[in-house]
Amino acid sequence: MTRFDDALRYAQDHQSAVLEELKELIRIPSVSTLPECKADVLRAAEWLAAKLRALGFQQVQVLPTGGHPVVVGQWMGAGQSAPTILTYGHYDVQPTDPIELWTSDPFEPSLRGDNLFARGASDMKGQLVAHLAAVEALLHAKALPANLKVLFEGEEEIGSPNLKPFLASHADLLSASFCLNADSGIQAPDQPAITYALRGLDYFEIRVHGPSHDLHSGQFGGAVDNPALVLCQAIAGMRDADGRILLPGFYDRVRPLTAEERQDLARLPQGEDWWREQTGVPALAGEAGYTSTERASARPTLDVNGMLSGFTGVGSKTVLPAKAMAKISMRLVADQMPEEVHASLHEYLTKVMPRSVEWEIEELSSCRPSLLERDSLPAQAASRALQRVWGVPPIFARQGGSVPIVGEMQTLLGIESLLLGFGLPDDNLHAPNEKQHLPTFYRGIEAFIRFYEELAR
Amino acid sequence: MTRFDDALRYAQDHQSAVLEELKELIRIPSVSTLPECKADVLRAAEWLAAKLRALGFQQVQVLPTGGHPVVVGQWMGAGQSAPTILTYGHYDVQPTDPIELWTSDPFEPSLRGDNLFARGASDMKGQLVAHLAAVEALLHAKALPANLKVLFEGEEEIGSPNLKPFLASHADLLSASFCLNADSGIQAPDQPAITYALRGLDYFEIRVHGPSHDLHSGQFGGAVDNPALVLCQAIAGMRDADGRILLPGFYDRVRPLTAEERQDLARLPQGEDWWREQTGVPALAGEAGYTSTERASARPTLDVNGMLSGFTGVGSKTVLPAKAMAKISMRLVADQMPEEVHASLHEYLTKVMPRSVEWEIEELSSCRPSLLERDSLPAQAASRALQRVWGVPPIFARQGGSVPIVGEMQTLLGIESLLLGFGLPDDNLHAPNEKQHLPTFYRGIEAFIRFYEELAR
Repeated sequence: MTRFDDALRYAQDHQSAVLEELKELIRIPSVSTLPECKADVLRAAEWLAAKLRALGFQQVQVLPTGGHPVVVGQWMGAGQSAPTILTYGHYDVQPTDPIELWTSDPFEPSLRGDNLFARGASDMKGQLVAHLAAVEALLHAKALPANLKVLFEGEEEIGSPNLKPFLASHADLLSASFCLNADSGIQAPDQPAITYALRGLDYFEIRVHGPSHDLHSGQFGGAVDNPALVLCQAIAGMRDADGRILLPGFYDRVRPLTAEERQDLARLPQGEDWWREQTGVPALAGEAGYTSTERASARPTLDVNGMLSGFTGVGSKTVLPAKAMAKISMRLVADQMPEEVHASLHEYLTKVMPRSVEWEIEELSSCRPSLLERDSLPAQAASRALQRVWGVPPIFARQGGSVPIVGEMQTLLGIESLLLGFGLPDDNLHAPNEKQHLPTFYRGIEAFIRFYEELAR
Repeated sequence: MTRFDDALRYAQDHQSAVLEELKELIRIPSVSTLPECKADVLRAAEWLAAKLRALGFQQVQVLPTGGHPVVVGQWMGAGQSAPTILTYGHYDVQPTDPIELWTSDPFEPSLRGDNLFARGASDMKGQLVAHLAAVEALLHAKALPANLKVLFEGEEEIGSPNLKPFLASHADLLSASFCLNADSGIQAPDQPAITYALRGLDYFEIRVHGPSHDLHSGQFGGAVDNPALVLCQAIAGMRDADGRILLPGFYDRVRPLTAEERQDLARLPQGEDWWREQTGVPALAGEAGYTSTERASARPTLDVNGMLSGFTGVGSKTVLPAKAMAKISMRLVADQMPEEVHASLHEYLTKVMPRSVEWEIEELSSCRPSLLERDSLPAQAASRALQRVWGVPPIFARQGGSVPIVGEMQTLLGIESLLLGFGLPDDNLHAPNEKQHLPTFYRGIEAFIRFYEELAR
């Protein structure tokens, strides 16, 4: 029995206590985008700070930012010769709407079968609590071989608007060998994976203004352009029938997939049937020449995230709306640059918008894509840990979502990030009935313990 | 002195009595949309029934419907060889909110300068009382040359939900040569006009369903079609850069404007500057080759009245929405048929919608366009009457909005409508401080008398 085995046993013996902790954190509705949840977001930060203090972390602080606070703290008990790891996480969650599609209260965890249903159960309160449970077990067994610094933010789900200045002004406090980021997942309960590439994001709101006020569509229809129709035409022209995005120069910097990468991605258990089942679409569709996995993780995309204009209630109102709005976002892949995509969108809109309307775009969030080399030390330690816990070699996978902090860690702290988390593709992230698969949750705790063990080799 | 001149003198001698009658009717707050006004709406109906009986009308009845009642009655004293005219009107009014913007009590008529301010003063109690004053004068002078049937409804301001079945079941009772509808207006106090054409309406909701639930745009974006983007592409393709509607066969039945019609429309006081000022758009826009007046009254259009998809709150939510909805409507002109337009929209959507989504359309309301031939007897009689009273030839105008009852008269009773009323563009219909311009009100009474005189020639 090594100390790591002791830690593992401790973790196994404390599964129900850890589950109760997760439930406690979930019950705090820390929705960062809703002003009315401000106090709850703070409460979640303080919950984590208290937990860190209980674990023996020092200099634990809930530091204010321009928005929601950042939780920091450190455990430097491994000594100066041990590596220092910066652990990143976020304690905020997505809103719950459409609330009517939830089967149970999003903030009252509901255990059904192997799954715990609640907002944040997977993204990422579940991952946070799993990692802290591993740390607790390692500390209990006096087995933690690395110094740990933590950085938990409360604004990840709104694009981390205050994290960048925070990183810039706290670079010394946060210095580390690399960043461990558990805001990640694997492709199936029985198939471990290491995410080496993330897509970036560029998210915009486009607003089109026509008449100075809503008009009667009978009295005025035909004499003025319809802002909603103009907006539809602008959006329609952003993508062609082959699923290619038509913004000027959009693909110029896109790193082509190598044959080796495509072979790896093809090993993932998610075939075309899986994508159909997960999404429930009548038929899959996307960029010609790529598999669904490639389309959703390794190729850039453009989506309408929301749009609103005029009368949207029940029945008919013959209004010619004064304005129309759409939220659109692009997922970017290495080596696209958000600032170039922004300029390209602006150029496109300038070209296509008629002078019968006024328009504006606002960038609501942006994040560079990232790509971690697969032969780095943290990646190799994680690979061995996952192989031990799952008994099969992990797949090196790419992730379609964005983790802005990963790019900012590179830029502002000069460190790479290892994405090691255990969310599942059917966890309903950002959607109704989000859940945590508990067997995977417990295996994740074990994997974190083995990761630290492998890192110490 | 003809008998018609006698009638005119009678009307002139009784102006203050007629004004008192109008005030009396106005004081009944017959707001059809407010349940608490139900008794008042009935009281207005009974007031009209009493007035008709006093005039010598027979078979006067206040007939119940599923909502507010209909007032019917007839005066058949002109004999079997004379034409029979169906007079349509409504005795209900719009609500008064925002009440704080009224200068005086909406239901206590206030005379200020040439104007009488009150809810319903123009729309359309003023028009109703003016016409009845003319009928009274003609009856007094034994000069009424036509048989009259009346049909006064109490639900026009809430979309006449019970009128269609009423017309269908009372077609014999209401049979006539044509309908005289005073729910109309002229463009300026010194410029008479006859509205000979109204646009129709076909109003739809289009719903597009993609994924079975909202998806994370990072995890799934690229692998599935985006319902909002698909909807934008479908809508964008409905209209070309010249403002022409691209639904198959959409223009097949559109009656081209004659040179004479275009000359008349060009005589209207509303020039391009007026359209710009009224709408506040950066630049006017519409179908190539037509003026704004033509575009907004004599040409068919397609407008987006509302659209909704995904996340529309403040900030960014990276959702790939499960569905998208748009309300779109077409304004139709003679001789387009709503049922053919409906079929054409369905055909278009069937062609353009990809199999990656499911979609449906629902027709929320429809109304045929209408057109009274300019050389018809009623139109010519009205034209001569207005020329006599105003001293200038009236403009034959078209109206961009729809008057559902006109279409229903065509469909269910087989008769055309003459729109002859004297509201003014600045009467504040449906708005605070609605008013009646009394010089125009009295001139309207005179015009109705001359109309009957000219009809008898």
